[in-house]
Amino acid sequence: MSAIRRRRTQSSSRAEEIVTAELRARRAQPDRPVHRAADSLLSWASAAPLHTRGLVNWAGLLLALSGARLVLENLLTYGLRVSAAGWASFLLGAAGQPHHYPVLYLLAALHLPLLATLHLERLLSSGRLAASTATGLHCAILVLVFALPVVLINLPALKFGLVSAVLACGGYCVIGLKLVSYIQVNSWCRSPRAGRLPREKSYVTPAELRRGGEAREGEAEAREEGGLVTYPDNLSLCDLYYFVLAPTLCYELNFPRTTRIRKTFLLRRLLEVVLLTQLVLALTQQWIIPDLLNSLVPFSRTDLPVATERLIRLSLPNHIIWLLGGYLLFHSCLNISGEVLHFADRQFYRDWWNSPNFSRFWQDWNLPVHRWFLRHLYKPLVAAGWSRSAAVFLVFLVSSLLHEYTVSVPLGMLKPWLFLGFMCNAPLVQLSSWLETRLGARAGNLSMWLFLMMGQPLLVMTYYHDYVVEHHGPTLIHHYGHLNSTQL
Amino acid sequence: MSAIRRRRTQSSSRAEEIVTAELRARRAQPDRPVHRAADSLLSWASAAPLHTRGLVNWAGLLLALSGARLVLENLLTYGLRVSAAGWASFLLGAAGQPHHYPVLYLLAALHLPLLATLHLERLLSSGRLAASTATGLHCAILVLVFALPVVLINLPALKFGLVSAVLACGGYCVIGLKLVSYIQVNSWCRSPRAGRLPREKSYVTPAELRRGGEAREGEAEAREEGGLVTYPDNLSLCDLYYFVLAPTLCYELNFPRTTRIRKTFLLRRLLEVVLLTQLVLALTQQWIIPDLLNSLVPFSRTDLPVATERLIRLSLPNHIIWLLGGYLLFHSCLNISGEVLHFADRQFYRDWWNSPNFSRFWQDWNLPVHRWFLRHLYKPLVAAGWSRSAAVFLVFLVSSLLHEYTVSVPLGMLKPWLFLGFMCNAPLVQLSSWLETRLGARAGNLSMWLFLMMGQPLLVMTYYHDYVVEHHGPTLIHHYGHLNSTQL
Repeated sequence: MSAIRRRRTQSSSRAEEIVTAELRARRAQPDRPVHRAADSLLSWASAAPLHTRGLVNWAGLLLALSGARLVLENLLTYGLRVSAAGWASFLLGAAGQPHHYPVLYLLAALHLPLLATLHLERLLSSGRLAASTATGLHCAILVLVFALPVVLINLPALKFGLVSAVLACGGYCVIGLKLVSYIQVNSWCRSPRAGRLPREKSYVTPAELRRGGEAREGEAEAREEGGLVTYPDNLSLCDLYYFVLAPTLCYELNFPRTTRIRKTFLLRRLLEVVLLTQLVLALTQQWIIPDLLNSLVPFSRTDLPVATERLIRLSLPNHIIWLLGGYLLFHSCLNISGEVLHFADRQFYRDWWNSPNFSRFWQDWNLPVHRWFLRHLYKPLVAAGWSRSAAVFLVFLVSSLLHEYTVSVPLGMLKPWLFLGFMCNAPLVQLSSWLETRLGARAGNLSMWLFLMMGQPLLVMTYYHDYVVEHHGPTLIHHYGHLNSTQL
Repeated sequence: MSAIRRRRTQSSSRAEEIVTAELRARRAQPDRPVHRAADSLLSWASAAPLHTRGLVNWAGLLLALSGARLVLENLLTYGLRVSAAGWASFLLGAAGQPHHYPVLYLLAALHLPLLATLHLERLLSSGRLAASTATGLHCAILVLVFALPVVLINLPALKFGLVSAVLACGGYCVIGLKLVSYIQVNSWCRSPRAGRLPREKSYVTPAELRRGGEAREGEAEAREEGGLVTYPDNLSLCDLYYFVLAPTLCYELNFPRTTRIRKTFLLRRLLEVVLLTQLVLALTQQWIIPDLLNSLVPFSRTDLPVATERLIRLSLPNHIIWLLGGYLLFHSCLNISGEVLHFADRQFYRDWWNSPNFSRFWQDWNLPVHRWFLRHLYKPLVAAGWSRSAAVFLVFLVSSLLHEYTVSVPLGMLKPWLFLGFMCNAPLVQLSSWLETRLGARAGNLSMWLFLMMGQPLLVMTYYHDYVVEHHGPTLIHHYGHLNSTQL
C-alpha cells in the first residue's frame, strides 16, 4: 500500500515538473491564469496527507448535540421526575415507612461473624484449637455471613427497599471475602516456612505451630525494630476492624500507611460523593425508569426491532450511570476510606478504558477484587496443581455466583441471568483476544466497550421483566401494553 | 502547570524510595503483602500519564450506537417512506405531470446569452464596437441571465417542481459568474499592458486596441510555438462551450489539460453520483420531511424548548445531507466533468474540515467560487483603490444575494432570511478568529462546526415555516398543531 503510494507520489512529482514548465508559459499570457493541474484532496491518487484533526472535533460536537437533544426530549416527554424526598429511605430501607431502616439490623448483625472469627484465630494462635476443627468452624462462619442477608431480607417484618437490599448483600459479600483473606493470611503466618512458598500445605498442626513459633522468635525481634507488627500480635479487635473498614479485600499485617490526612483531597472526594450520588439517582428517576417501563412490552412480546431500539435507548443512561458509579466507588469512596484510615495504597483501578481486550479489562477495572482472586484463589489453586485455565474458570465461577447472589437475593427470585451473563465472559475474553490479534488493539478495545455498553442493559431489562412477571403477573404487562399502544 | 507537575513527580519519587525500603521490610514478612503506597490514577497528584486512546474509541462507539438507535426509531415511527418512483420528475419538473420537464426549456434558453456574449466579444476584438457600448450590452445580457429563471419559473404554464427550480436557478447563477469571468478576461487580453497590472483601466478604445494588437503580433507567434492559444483565437464557439462545461468559474485561454481519461476513476465517480444521489433523496424523504413537519407548530408558536429540540433533531440529517451533497458536487460531479473534458485542475476544495476559523473555511470549502470572487471581484476592487475590508464586505454581499436568489426565486417569495444568514458570516468570521486567538485552533474549529450544524437547519425551518404560511395560510399550522398534540 505505502509502496504504491510512494510510486504514485513519484510519478505525480514527475508530472508536476512538466506541469510547472507549462504553467510558466501560461503565466506569461495576459489572461492571469489561476488553474494548475492537481488532484482532488480526497482522490486516492492525491499525494497530500489527509489530516483529520477537525473530524475528531466534529465527532465530539455531534455527540454533545445528540446528548443535548436527548436531555431536551426526555424533559419534554416526561417532565421533571427527580424528587429529592425519600432518598434516605430508598437507600436505607423500605419506602413508605419513614424512620424505619432495616439496613441497620444487618449492620448490627455483622459484628457476630467478625468477633467469632477473631476468637477462633486467637485460639488457633495459642494452640488451643485443632486446625481441622478450626477449618470447619471457619466454614460455618462464612456460611453464616452469606446466609444472614438472605434470612433478614426475606423476613416479612423487615420490609427492605430494593436498593438498600442490594447494598446490604454487596456489603456482606465484601465482608465474606475479607474474612477469607484474614483467615488465609493468618494461616500462612502460622506455617513454619513463613508462607513464602505455599506449595506444601496451608494449615499446620498445633505441634508444628509451636515449633515454628520458637524458630521465628528471633526474627520477630529483628522486625520489631522496623516497627512492623508480627504474628500473633496482629490478632486484636482494633487490627481486625481496621481491615474491615480499609479499602482492600486482601489482609496484611502491615499495610502501607500515609503520614497525614490531606484535607482538601478529602473534601473534594466528599463533595464528589454528595454530587455524584445525587446525579446517579436523578438520572435513574428521570431516564432509566421511564425507558425501562417502555421496554417491558416489546421485550415480553419478543418484538425484536422495537426491543432492540429500547435496548440501545436504555444502554446510554445505563452506561453513564455505570461509569459514574464506578468513579464514585473506586475513586471517591475508596479514597475517602483510605485517606481517613491513613491507608496508602490507592491503586483501586488501572487504565481499563484503554484495555486492548476483555481479559485486561477484568485485570484493571476492579483491583481490590482482582487482587483477592489472584492471591486467595488463583495462586493457591495453581500451587495446588490445578491447570491455569481451570483456575481461571473457577475464578469466573465464584465471581459469577457472587454477582448473582447480590442481585437475586434482594429481588427475591432465583434467576440465572446474571450468572450466565457473567459466565459469558469466558468466551468473550477469548473473542476479544482473538479480535485484538487479528485486527489490532483498537478492535479489541472497541469490542470491550461494545460488550460493556450492550451486555448490561440486556441484563437489566431481563431482570426487570422477570421481576414484574414474578411479582405482578402478566396482567401488568397487558395493562402497560395497552397504555403504550395508545401513547405511541 | 508543568512545573507543579514536575515538582509533584519529584516529591513522589522521593516518597517512593522510602516506601520501597519499607516495602522490602514488609516483603520479608510471612503474610505475602500485595499493597504498596500509590495514588489513584485519576488523582491530580498521580504522576502516571493519562492515556486516552480508549476514550476516543468509546466516543466513536457511542456515536455509532446513537446513530443506529435513531435509524431504528425513525423506521419504527414512520415506516419506510423512501420511494424510488417520481424522482425524475421531482428533479426535472413538476410532480404529478409525467413527461413534462420544464427544466429543459431553461436549458434551451441558456444558449441565447452565451451566443450573444460571444458575438459581442468578436465585434470587440475586431474593433467594430465601442467599449462603452459593449459594456452596456454585456450588462443587459447578464441581467437577462438572472431574469430568465425568474420569468420562466413564475409562468403558470410551466409548473416547476421545487428541487428542479432550485437546480435551475443555481445553474443560471453559475452561467452568470462564468460570463462575467469570460468578459473580464477577454478585456484583459485587449488591454495594451497585456493585463499583468490591471491598475490603470480595464476597457480600451478601439484605437488603443489596434495599436496594442500590432505590438503583440510578434509575441503571439512566439507563444504559438508552445502550442498556447492567444487572443483573439480563443473567441470560438467550441472554446466558449468548453468553458461553460468545465468545472471552473474562472476563464482562461489555456486551461491545464490531462493526456488521458482514467476509466476506473471515471467509473468510480459515476457510481458515487448514482449511489449518493439515491442516499440523499432517501434521507430527505425518510428523515428530513417528517422532522420538518414536526417542527412547524413549535416554531410558529415560538415554543422555545420544543423548537430547540426540533432544531437539534433536524440539524443531524441536514448536516449529513449537506456533507453528502458537498462530496457529491465538489468531488464526484466536478471530477467527472474534469475527467471527460481533460481538465487537469481538480482542486475544488481544500481540507476545510480542519479550518481553525470560519474565514479559512470560506477560503477552502468552495474553491471555484472562492477563486472567482478573488480574481474577478476582490482583486479588481483592491486594485481600484478600495480598502480590503470594504472589498471583503462586497464579496459577502454579492455572495449573499446570489444565495438568496437561488432560494427565493424557486420558493416564489422574497424573504431576507438566507441573505441575513449569509451576511451573519461577517461577524461570525470575526468571532471564530477571536476564539482561535484566545482559546486555540480547536476552539475555532469547534465554533466553525457548530455554526455549520446549527445555522443551516435554522434557515431550513424558517423557510419551510414561511413557505407553508405563504402558500397554505395559518389554517394548516392550526391543523398540524391539532394533529400533533393528539399524536404526542
